[in-house]
Amino acid sequence: MKSRAAVAFAPGKPLEIVEVDVAPPQAGEVLIKITHTGVCHTDAFTLSGDDPEGVFPAILGHEGAGVVVEVGEGVTSVQPGDHVIPLYTAECKECLFCKSGKTNLCVAVRATQGKGVMPDGTTRFSYNGEPIYHYMGCSTFSEYTVVAEVSLAKINPEANHEQVCLLGCGVTTGIGAVHNTAKVQEGDSVAVFGLGGIGLAVVQGARQAKAGQIIVVDTNPDKFELAKQFGATDFLNPKDYDKPIQQVIVEMTGWGVDHSFECIGNVNVMRSALECAHRGWGQSVIIGVAGAGQEISTRPFQLVTGRKWLGTAFGGVKGRSQLPKMVEDAMKGEIQLEPFVTHTMPLQDINTAFDLMHEGKSIRTVIHF
Amino acid sequence: MKSRAAVAFAPGKPLEIVEVDVAPPQAGEVLIKITHTGVCHTDAFTLSGDDPEGVFPAILGHEGAGVVVEVGEGVTSVQPGDHVIPLYTAECKECLFCKSGKTNLCVAVRATQGKGVMPDGTTRFSYNGEPIYHYMGCSTFSEYTVVAEVSLAKINPEANHEQVCLLGCGVTTGIGAVHNTAKVQEGDSVAVFGLGGIGLAVVQGARQAKAGQIIVVDTNPDKFELAKQFGATDFLNPKDYDKPIQQVIVEMTGWGVDHSFECIGNVNVMRSALECAHRGWGQSVIIGVAGAGQEISTRPFQLVTGRKWLGTAFGGVKGRSQLPKMVEDAMKGEIQLEPFVTHTMPLQDINTAFDLMHEGKSIRTVIHF
Repeated sequence: MKSRAAVAFAPGKPLEIVEVDVAPPQAGEVLIKITHTGVCHTDAFTLSGDDPEGVFPAILGHEGAGVVVEVGEGVTSVQPGDHVIPLYTAECKECLFCKSGKTNLCVAVRATQGKGVMPDGTTRFSYNGEPIYHYMGCSTFSEYTVVAEVSLAKINPEANHEQVCLLGCGVTTGIGAVHNTAKVQEGDSVAVFGLGGIGLAVVQGARQAKAGQIIVVDTNPDKFELAKQFGATDFLNPKDYDKPIQQVIVEMTGWGVDHSFECIGNVNVMRSALECAHRGWGQSVIIGVAGAGQEISTRPFQLVTGRKWLGTAFGGVKGRSQLPKMVEDAMKGEIQLEPFVTHTMPLQDINTAFDLMHEGKSIRTVIHF
Repeated sequence: MKSRAAVAFAPGKPLEIVEVDVAPPQAGEVLIKITHTGVCHTDAFTLSGDDPEGVFPAILGHEGAGVVVEVGEGVTSVQPGDHVIPLYTAECKECLFCKSGKTNLCVAVRATQGKGVMPDGTTRFSYNGEPIYHYMGCSTFSEYTVVAEVSLAKINPEANHEQVCLLGCGVTTGIGAVHNTAKVQEGDSVAVFGLGGIGLAVVQGARQAKAGQIIVVDTNPDKFELAKQFGATDFLNPKDYDKPIQQVIVEMTGWGVDHSFECIGNVNVMRSALECAHRGWGQSVIIGVAGAGQEISTRPFQLVTGRKWLGTAFGGVKGRSQLPKMVEDAMKGEIQLEPFVTHTMPLQDINTAFDLMHEGKSIRTVIHF
């Protein structure tokens, strides 16, 4: 079938809106009609050419919502008409990782997903007879896309897709990191570095967890107002200080914060986030994705004196098991999604969404098809 | 009073055996007659001059056992005749850290201890009228020493001091790291980097915890026999491989080990230890003390894919609360200390103990007074 799609033909070039061919879903695969998709920094990272796993031409996009159109052989967990969110972190419920009870990092489709192909090693997209690669197992920048059954969360059909598509990545990552990775407890102190979509979601998660103090750090003070609405209590712009921001935070809290979150992908900020953690038990969670080859460092004394350095992917959330509940939470208002959607636009304007993000003017632009 | 002591008059010089003056214990302090003391790498590190906190002249030594001789005003938890182990990690039971239930890093005497003085800012040792500094709150290289009451664990008077003095540092650190920091569970896989006293104690702790696989890594294969006696199951000499040892471990285990321990103080080994941890949940505990200014690094991807980087000091053990029980365990044979004591000698030969350690010929030399 034919599908309108925004194709990344080459790194560093704008996306091109073209009509691609989509092959039918094979065994264990599902054809989805995407209704809405967010545009995330990870899409921009891959488009820039800096992502060592990036392959071209590809259809990017990994933060979407849609409706099942057709299922391949053997698919039992969804059927045509079901509302779904594609998952870049699959959940097969059968692999060593899914069964461990310790992680959401399912390996069922990991190897092929990283190469931009479906589990059988081929692509479902083509243009003028040439294959186009998939992206993060989702490719939500196409009106019709094919994903593995294990990469689909079935959600409440009453949910507002324009909002819950954001649970496909950023918001879930931030909220999940608070509850699943850091396990923030009532009264704990928290520092959040970077107030993009993920950082603001961390603030929401920290308020849900009844954190006692929520310190937010951003070089753009325009972000502080929304953070305050979501529950932030203290606001730091590193440009206002002539000493390292971790030192400012340690001094204002006495011994540092119980939990810190890096939501940018900057290895220097990752160090600051670790070093503002409380002596004895503070922990720092890396959420941001750093550039290829970049490394984090610190003195080991920071860890020997009780700090812990962790990371998280998709907030530790098991998509098929846990995402439906988060959609329900959003429908009840327990997760606020509407303030994240600062812009909406049709697919043909998608390059503008990237511009707004690069200029720091949007939290999230949602594309509708 | 007069006391025989091995004094470090200057960095990089052998210790000198002289007779120093010891002032009476002040309020909250206790005079101890040291019967035995181990010689640890940390003593050598400070003696070398590389320790940025090192002050001279000082009486080193922090792994001892002895008997209370006299108590200062207000001391209630010990009395003359009690058998004790001095603690370089105090336990006041009243500070924020002691009360947290999350860490053993008491701050009661931390600031002054780091400067080589007693809590009132002065020293109890002098030689020819000039002050000599304390070390790690213990100074066990003196027959008589003065320590803070909060820095003393009262132990079973039947215990063999020549052995249980090792619970003052290395053995407790290694065993504690397994139980308190990593919390190794039955069936878990473990990798231990470095088979000095601490590494061998980690092996013992892992066997106590019923670890399923205990991989030991050392460039000196002479250490493997004792590790095997203590329960190690797999033996790796990095010199036998032409690829990074973390890659060897990941390949032999499938996805890495559940827990790894760095017991050397080498920042490159700390990286190897982290990177051999299991994707999704593996954790790596830094125990070794790195040189001043040295830093650890890795790609943040290692943490984002579920590894945790931790550290420990004194194995997370609260000395006054938990060490007496460990002494009992040693008396029952549940902790084996005898194999650690490869050499014993009188105080006047203490420089030989340092030589044996530097040459890798001893696990522990115990000095008797």
